[in-house]
Amino acid sequence: MQLTAPLDMHLHLRDGDMLQNIAKASAQTFSGAIIMPNLVPPVSTKEEVIAYKERILAAIGDEKFTPYMTLFFKPSYDKAFLESLRDEITAIKLYPAGITTNSEGGVSGFDVEELRPTLEAMSELNIPLCVHGETNGFVMDREAEFVSIYERLANAFPKLKIIMEHITTKESVKALDKHENLYATITIHHLLLTLDDVAGGMLQPHLFCKPIAKRPEDREALLKVALEAHPKVMFGSDSAPHPKHAKENCGCAAGVFTAPIALQLLTELFEKHHALNNIQAFVSGNAQKIYGITPRTKTIILEKKPFTVPAIYNDVVPMYANETIAYSIKDIQHG
Amino acid sequence: MQLTAPLDMHLHLRDGDMLQNIAKASAQTFSGAIIMPNLVPPVSTKEEVIAYKERILAAIGDEKFTPYMTLFFKPSYDKAFLESLRDEITAIKLYPAGITTNSEGGVSGFDVEELRPTLEAMSELNIPLCVHGETNGFVMDREAEFVSIYERLANAFPKLKIIMEHITTKESVKALDKHENLYATITIHHLLLTLDDVAGGMLQPHLFCKPIAKRPEDREALLKVALEAHPKVMFGSDSAPHPKHAKENCGCAAGVFTAPIALQLLTELFEKHHALNNIQAFVSGNAQKIYGITPRTKTIILEKKPFTVPAIYNDVVPMYANETIAYSIKDIQHG
Repeated sequence: MQLTAPLDMHLHLRDGDMLQNIAKASAQTFSGAIIMPNLVPPVSTKEEVIAYKERILAAIGDEKFTPYMTLFFKPSYDKAFLESLRDEITAIKLYPAGITTNSEGGVSGFDVEELRPTLEAMSELNIPLCVHGETNGFVMDREAEFVSIYERLANAFPKLKIIMEHITTKESVKALDKHENLYATITIHHLLLTLDDVAGGMLQPHLFCKPIAKRPEDREALLKVALEAHPKVMFGSDSAPHPKHAKENCGCAAGVFTAPIALQLLTELFEKHHALNNIQAFVSGNAQKIYGITPRTKTIILEKKPFTVPAIYNDVVPMYANETIAYSIKDIQHG
Repeated sequence: MQLTAPLDMHLHLRDGDMLQNIAKASAQTFSGAIIMPNLVPPVSTKEEVIAYKERILAAIGDEKFTPYMTLFFKPSYDKAFLESLRDEITAIKLYPAGITTNSEGGVSGFDVEELRPTLEAMSELNIPLCVHGETNGFVMDREAEFVSIYERLANAFPKLKIIMEHITTKESVKALDKHENLYATITIHHLLLTLDDVAGGMLQPHLFCKPIAKRPEDREALLKVALEAHPKVMFGSDSAPHPKHAKENCGCAAGVFTAPIALQLLTELFEKHHALNNIQAFVSGNAQKIYGITPRTKTIILEKKPFTVPAIYNDVVPMYANETIAYSIKDIQHG
């Protein structure tokens, strides 16, 4: 079993000590990843993009891995500014203000006219817009409520590629086929979990993320498009490390750390559903077409051999810590 | 502002060290409480009821408080057995097997004929049946799914008083008016919280309980019948202490510790909704009529003076720890 040039189209590498802690483990099994810009302060200038990329490359050391950089969306970006850093970024990430970790500087209100100058410039420069699509409504409704905003943006900017990030609901899946310019990433944890896993037995902080895992029928809808490798969906781990104390705390931070085990879990899941023929498209092919990128050569050899997930990766507890999963990484080949 | 003979119709006092830790704080502001029997092993013989009551009385010391004892429901109880301990218990508590803390010995399946001997004996002896009404379905649906079981039992045993414990959904509220013999307890936390408070921002282990807090429209339905002191609803805190480490842990136990602040929070809530005229019925009068009990004389004087909730009560973190609430206990009068 092998995967060629796998891509993680939604990855948090953080900064500082945390970047040092998790960069290698997050990068090792992927050819590249779309790197989220929600640092403190958010990555919003050319200089910051370049400097952050350099810090990432330093942290991953000798891992062969391409960080596809993103800029933190602000409605004030003009075309000249975007042209000046077009070569440095692969996409721009939009956060509604205050909706998740380090999103305080995001967008409040989604007035099309207010966003028009930046989004038209992005259309013209062919820069995809990645969106964390949640309103500030009731936690189980936030994403479904946001679909009307996705649709408004998709209609107003028909040439803009809009990526609905880490979708978790049947409503988002439906929107994919209604608008030519809507795409989506799906995480491994949202393919495996529902709210039952987070809060149905004991409360599980290491499975708590935003958007929160939803209902069984939502997971079914996600599974369907992932397993068939629907051409508009891509794998994006949303692997989001927090220090152990920030997760196992009274007031636990949102985010699941999955990058080091994502491909193993995906392989197990696709095999279980007799869909291994589609996994390559889901973890690489679709993303290459949607983004128009050609990833570096890297082949991940997996074998069906039990692997016990480490209890911790340098102060970060991964999903399924100490549990045994069915697939292991056997080898990673370059060139 | 005063409350006369307040009753907590659903209270966990636990056993051993935990009983010592929280008994006084749980009993202090109430005339009495229905004591849950889910110890390890569950309280299921006359000797166990009597011995547990003695341990409770020893733990509360000089607090004036009546523990209304319950028996852990088993379908094997016959009428002679129930008659033999009729004077020792106020109700029998039924748990579906495995549905919450220490419920492993509960009922699997709800076959009316299997339950008939015990439930008919309870009807004849006028022993109310308290039920934790959740299926093992999806966490947000468990209680609504259980309503059909409540209705089946209510129809099959029309003389049996069935208390739907700690209801959390609009579906349970609706069932109240459909069946003469269905009653309900409602907690203070389910009147204040939705899932948003538990998992909408950071994950909040100290607000995690079973049944889990539900949707805004569910809370509205609960608020309506509580604030009007619907004659079939009673206050029951479901105050359910766990040691700090079992809450602030990877795999947090379900239960919110509210007993010491329940009356203060209820007063604040009823005042906010201009319903103070109904609070006495909700916290005592309705329960007296439904259960046919006459509580000991005890008057709780509250004043509108900010109270900062302690960070911890002997290793148990309460709801709203370190937060300031609007009402304080000014005095407790006996006799």
